[in-house]
Amino acid sequence: MRIFNFSAGPCTLPVEVLEEIRDEIVDYRGAGMSLIEMSHRSPEYGEVHESAVALVRRLLAVPDEHDILLIQGGATMQFGMVPMNLLADGGRGGYIDTGAWASKALADAAHHGDVYTAWSGADGGYTRVPAPEELRVEEGARYLHMTSNETIGGVQHKEWPGVGAPLVADMSSDLMSRPVPWDLLDLAYGGVQKNLAPAGMALVIVRRTVLERAPRRLATYLRYDVHADTDSLHNTPPVFPIYVMEKTLRWIERSGGLAAMEAAADERAGLIYRAIDESEGFYTSPVERASRSNMNVVFRIADNDLEPGFIEEATARGMSGLKGHRSVGGCRASLYNAMPKAGAEALAELMAEFQRRA
Amino acid sequence: MRIFNFSAGPCTLPVEVLEEIRDEIVDYRGAGMSLIEMSHRSPEYGEVHESAVALVRRLLAVPDEHDILLIQGGATMQFGMVPMNLLADGGRGGYIDTGAWASKALADAAHHGDVYTAWSGADGGYTRVPAPEELRVEEGARYLHMTSNETIGGVQHKEWPGVGAPLVADMSSDLMSRPVPWDLLDLAYGGVQKNLAPAGMALVIVRRTVLERAPRRLATYLRYDVHADTDSLHNTPPVFPIYVMEKTLRWIERSGGLAAMEAAADERAGLIYRAIDESEGFYTSPVERASRSNMNVVFRIADNDLEPGFIEEATARGMSGLKGHRSVGGCRASLYNAMPKAGAEALAELMAEFQRRA
Repeated sequence: MRIFNFSAGPCTLPVEVLEEIRDEIVDYRGAGMSLIEMSHRSPEYGEVHESAVALVRRLLAVPDEHDILLIQGGATMQFGMVPMNLLADGGRGGYIDTGAWASKALADAAHHGDVYTAWSGADGGYTRVPAPEELRVEEGARYLHMTSNETIGGVQHKEWPGVGAPLVADMSSDLMSRPVPWDLLDLAYGGVQKNLAPAGMALVIVRRTVLERAPRRLATYLRYDVHADTDSLHNTPPVFPIYVMEKTLRWIERSGGLAAMEAAADERAGLIYRAIDESEGFYTSPVERASRSNMNVVFRIADNDLEPGFIEEATARGMSGLKGHRSVGGCRASLYNAMPKAGAEALAELMAEFQRRA
Repeated sequence: MRIFNFSAGPCTLPVEVLEEIRDEIVDYRGAGMSLIEMSHRSPEYGEVHESAVALVRRLLAVPDEHDILLIQGGATMQFGMVPMNLLADGGRGGYIDTGAWASKALADAAHHGDVYTAWSGADGGYTRVPAPEELRVEEGARYLHMTSNETIGGVQHKEWPGVGAPLVADMSSDLMSRPVPWDLLDLAYGGVQKNLAPAGMALVIVRRTVLERAPRRLATYLRYDVHADTDSLHNTPPVFPIYVMEKTLRWIERSGGLAAMEAAADERAGLIYRAIDESEGFYTSPVERASRSNMNVVFRIADNDLEPGFIEEATARGMSGLKGHRSVGGCRASLYNAMPKAGAEALAELMAEFQRRA
């Protein structure tokens, strides 16, 4: 039986994608070997690599002015690479501190460039994103860094702040779940292990003019321009995540593209938020309504003692990964692209029933 | 039909390993999901992760004084991380320049520390490794960097130079093919995509005392001490390569461990070198006898014009990946752990037959 997997990442993938991998993993389309055994310079792998990049460009409507890079190390590696590359010749980076991940991005960046906090939600317990007019854009700000969705806090930017400085967005947990206004962004990055592929890579989309001021005095793997100039084949790429991402992207395309992903995400999250709102305080969400994430729905049972029993019952009904992040506790339902609507329905139903019986 | 895959990396894996993946990829041991969909904090993944590290320790006889780290970015990323971490508080790094990969390691390191060339084979066309007495170990040398096997040039260190400075070894293409004298090494690293797993990770084995002088002013992903303190779970690890590596390591263990791997490697490479030596100049090896790699056998047909026909005939007989690296041309047979003896026999037979008919 297939479990409804609400894990925050790594997380559920389309089962069709897993079945395709199963059918190809020993002998890739009659080649007499697996794709993961092939040279990354082989025509077979080259086709997969190019197709993956082309699908990202098409589905996310990435303009010609932006390059698409595949870099190992996840989003965490980008916390360092962004300032190393964008602040090497001076300028400041402003950071919108909306929670755990934004704070980590800022802390890492402080070692590699002149950065400052453009807004912080710390005092308010990280329960919302700021309005554009609350952001402090300093003279000399080369970019404004935002975490489009906080995976742990369940807070999501619904609007993209157009406030003068180019945006740099960590989109790890909502990448490929909604359209991106590229005119506002110099760079978007995200670990692929939520909506796209197994862990082991970040997708980095960067405006080409940014690369012109990239530093030359830096180890090659850390230079965006090196990855761009080599089509992300400077060294051996992470073949398997790229191979799976290509399949997931084709699944997204035949499922209706980003518009369909966004509508489905709103619908799934809506089911859970409704269950919370209609519970009259039995379930609570710490997040302000306008900042509620449609990827990670964070909630508590007002009587915290009931939570272990709730998680246990969910598990018994084939729903896993509902425990909140160890740093905050409570419950969290991660509802990425590959989560079927039936999963959200089953969870909403359990929530209502559990409340009735409580 | 399964092809004999002589590719230099990514490369052949044990077919049993591929078959295990096939059987588990949709539903991991009845969990109702794939291992690549599970949280990296789940007990199932944790077991695989710990087992992989324990197998590395056991098979490579890694002493307690060394930590075993799993870091994304391949060996190329280590070219930067080594000096960033080991030279942060001063000291010099000496580099033994034995070819393409050693040169890259040195060039990257020059951006992040005070480094120098301890020996260079450039003038001799990179056809051998140096004798210990040829190495220049400077006052203040914190380490001596060696490339234990040059994948492109086919040159391999058969001995480990014990010359006063601790060694740092890039073992990308002979890692887990032979024992390592840990008393001489402060650090060994290698991309896993040769003898161990699909691309997307480096295995880094570092003496714990080295971590004490690691810099704190560096993005977390680039700090060895952070990876060590978190058992390589600082952020989401590259789950799939680790999962496959664990299976390959178990395959190595039941095949007789490192002693068996080394004997098999010598036997396979011996078959090809014998075909070269017995050809009376029809086939030639550019590498001096004492430095011949048993992982990557580089050779030419004296009449270079015959090479395309040779490669074509090999392909027709189910042998692939025999073309030399695009930077040097000629032929190259990579003979990693998972290459069956029958593969080397088939190639040696073709070489003899091709010569008779030429």
